[in-house]
Amino acid sequence: MSYKNLAYDSVLKFCRKVFQGYGFSPDESRIITDVLLTADLYGIESHGIQRLIRYHKEITGGLVKLDAKPEIVFETPLSAVIEGNDAMGQLLGCIAMDLAIKKAKTSGIGMVTVRNSNHFGIAGYYSKMAADEDLIGISMTNSEAIMVPTFGRQAMLGTNPIAFAMPADPVPFLYDASTTVMPRGKLEVYSKRGSSVPVGLIIDEDGNDCTDPARVLANIIAKAGGGILPLGGSGTDTSGHKGYGFGLICEICTSILSGGVTSNYIFRTPGRSDVCHGFWAIDYGLFGDKAAIKESLSKFLQELRDSDKAEGQTRIYTHGEIELESKENVIKQGIPVNEKTYNEMQMIGNYAGADPAILEYV
Amino acid sequence: MSYKNLAYDSVLKFCRKVFQGYGFSPDESRIITDVLLTADLYGIESHGIQRLIRYHKEITGGLVKLDAKPEIVFETPLSAVIEGNDAMGQLLGCIAMDLAIKKAKTSGIGMVTVRNSNHFGIAGYYSKMAADEDLIGISMTNSEAIMVPTFGRQAMLGTNPIAFAMPADPVPFLYDASTTVMPRGKLEVYSKRGSSVPVGLIIDEDGNDCTDPARVLANIIAKAGGGILPLGGSGTDTSGHKGYGFGLICEICTSILSGGVTSNYIFRTPGRSDVCHGFWAIDYGLFGDKAAIKESLSKFLQELRDSDKAEGQTRIYTHGEIELESKENVIKQGIPVNEKTYNEMQMIGNYAGADPAILEYV
Repeated sequence: MSYKNLAYDSVLKFCRKVFQGYGFSPDESRIITDVLLTADLYGIESHGIQRLIRYHKEITGGLVKLDAKPEIVFETPLSAVIEGNDAMGQLLGCIAMDLAIKKAKTSGIGMVTVRNSNHFGIAGYYSKMAADEDLIGISMTNSEAIMVPTFGRQAMLGTNPIAFAMPADPVPFLYDASTTVMPRGKLEVYSKRGSSVPVGLIIDEDGNDCTDPARVLANIIAKAGGGILPLGGSGTDTSGHKGYGFGLICEICTSILSGGVTSNYIFRTPGRSDVCHGFWAIDYGLFGDKAAIKESLSKFLQELRDSDKAEGQTRIYTHGEIELESKENVIKQGIPVNEKTYNEMQMIGNYAGADPAILEYV
Repeated sequence: MSYKNLAYDSVLKFCRKVFQGYGFSPDESRIITDVLLTADLYGIESHGIQRLIRYHKEITGGLVKLDAKPEIVFETPLSAVIEGNDAMGQLLGCIAMDLAIKKAKTSGIGMVTVRNSNHFGIAGYYSKMAADEDLIGISMTNSEAIMVPTFGRQAMLGTNPIAFAMPADPVPFLYDASTTVMPRGKLEVYSKRGSSVPVGLIIDEDGNDCTDPARVLANIIAKAGGGILPLGGSGTDTSGHKGYGFGLICEICTSILSGGVTSNYIFRTPGRSDVCHGFWAIDYGLFGDKAAIKESLSKFLQELRDSDKAEGQTRIYTHGEIELESKENVIKQGIPVNEKTYNEMQMIGNYAGADPAILEYV
């Protein structure tokens, strides 16, 4: 599938107009666009502009309620539970992490959960919000069941990403990954490209190995069985039970601690997504002198990057490096957009009253 | 290698006498023994009585200081940093988690880090202490460098286990696992048994695949290169960068937040282990009605266990089930001890003045 590079600024303007076209305020549209395009800036194609079509369907289909008013239904100086009332996930994510950050600045720690939300984009966006405020940030979300537990053949957990961010120099530590062996978005990209998936990552409706991304995606949507394996792969020999365990930890910190529904009930109620999130902000000054702690992390990350490389490798990365380097490149060279996504953008622009002609090639 | 089953009570008495023989108080010996044998009760041979020889060497070799007085060097209502002064890891672990639990009961959350400690046994022992007090418990430790970062060939991180526990009925959620694709203890068991390790789990000093556990263990001790791969395996195709990331998160929550040294410096200073730990206790009442939250977790864990099984499988486990079922069996049927370990126990008993004749076969 052929790719064309669209100028970042033009996609930014286009997306803001699209979201305003749906009825979001200029401020809301700015936030939603920033979360969406940060994925493209980071080189995470799966979660970027190629997902505009999904948000389009969820907004126009009524899963996302534009007039939703989130409510804090439980609160302590250290914590809060937000009833999302089906608002846009990105807006709830920013409200919730802002609240966690505020609590961390006042009390040392803030932990906020959200129930009855929608997809919120890349988990790492929110953990980085905390790191940008000189805090440790953790963000998690459950999602439509796609992960099959060890020894099972029925998807019961979502991709359930865990993101963890902490300031460091010259580059912060920004970890953000699904607890499956592969994220759903990557499976979508395989499917859009029409390419097959290597053996050992996904299983079919009977619980057998499978290489066809479209078949597994269709099964997931139809709740027909099969899905993506946990981090660590099949069975316990290569520790698949660990990915399954991290998926469960994510589930606890999102749905269980928000009074929401677990991944296996997401998209089961007509007209609702029912996604849950969790956001933690921790002032690392709780453990002593912040400058010394940050310096110690920076030193260790540098030692990792400087350590001996495997044969044939020239570089060891620490988490966040690839994303921040990508950002510089994408701003200069544009967002690579495949033909299918480009056509979807045309349709969406025309629907939402955002003229696709403002999109510029680089 | 042949195994014999020793009566649990007799091993308990023997170990308490051994630790008293080294000079620990009866109370201290009871705690150390409980942590050690809980691993055997849970069926985690790698971390149980087979490791007595390791503690013997560390205590008699002076790495563990019997008269060490741990000090709280930094404290807030939510947190503390403990200078371990090279005390026995199990004792520091219990002191630190007790403090975290006390803070969680008073303030909602307690986070305690420990530096300059020694090996503390299974991480899950401490997280379960919090679950037993109706809290969420998290415990982590760094350890001698054994994990090679993605694209590297030099061990830079320890097995860096993360344990997470939360009460549920009829069985709590007890997750405890290294962030490597295999724990060091399991490599030690492979080596003691003289069996080879499957391809894709360990690498040799040149960064190539290897199946010889003794060679990799020797390399680790000699700091000669190679080691165990992160959870997710080699490279990024099967998400090895995620295990590497979780290992780094563990490192942050242990060494970085305690002002201690990172895994790549453990056992580098003569006479010291320099291990660091992290302990979190969280009152889940911070998120609403505890009974309802616990009920919701119990329900989801049951749904996981009841979900469709893969072909050829009869059971899906939730984390903690295997361990608690093993406990019932081991109390009845005894601790399986291999010949090498049994001989080590004889030597150690004679050294410490604990008569090995009190050990009884089942």
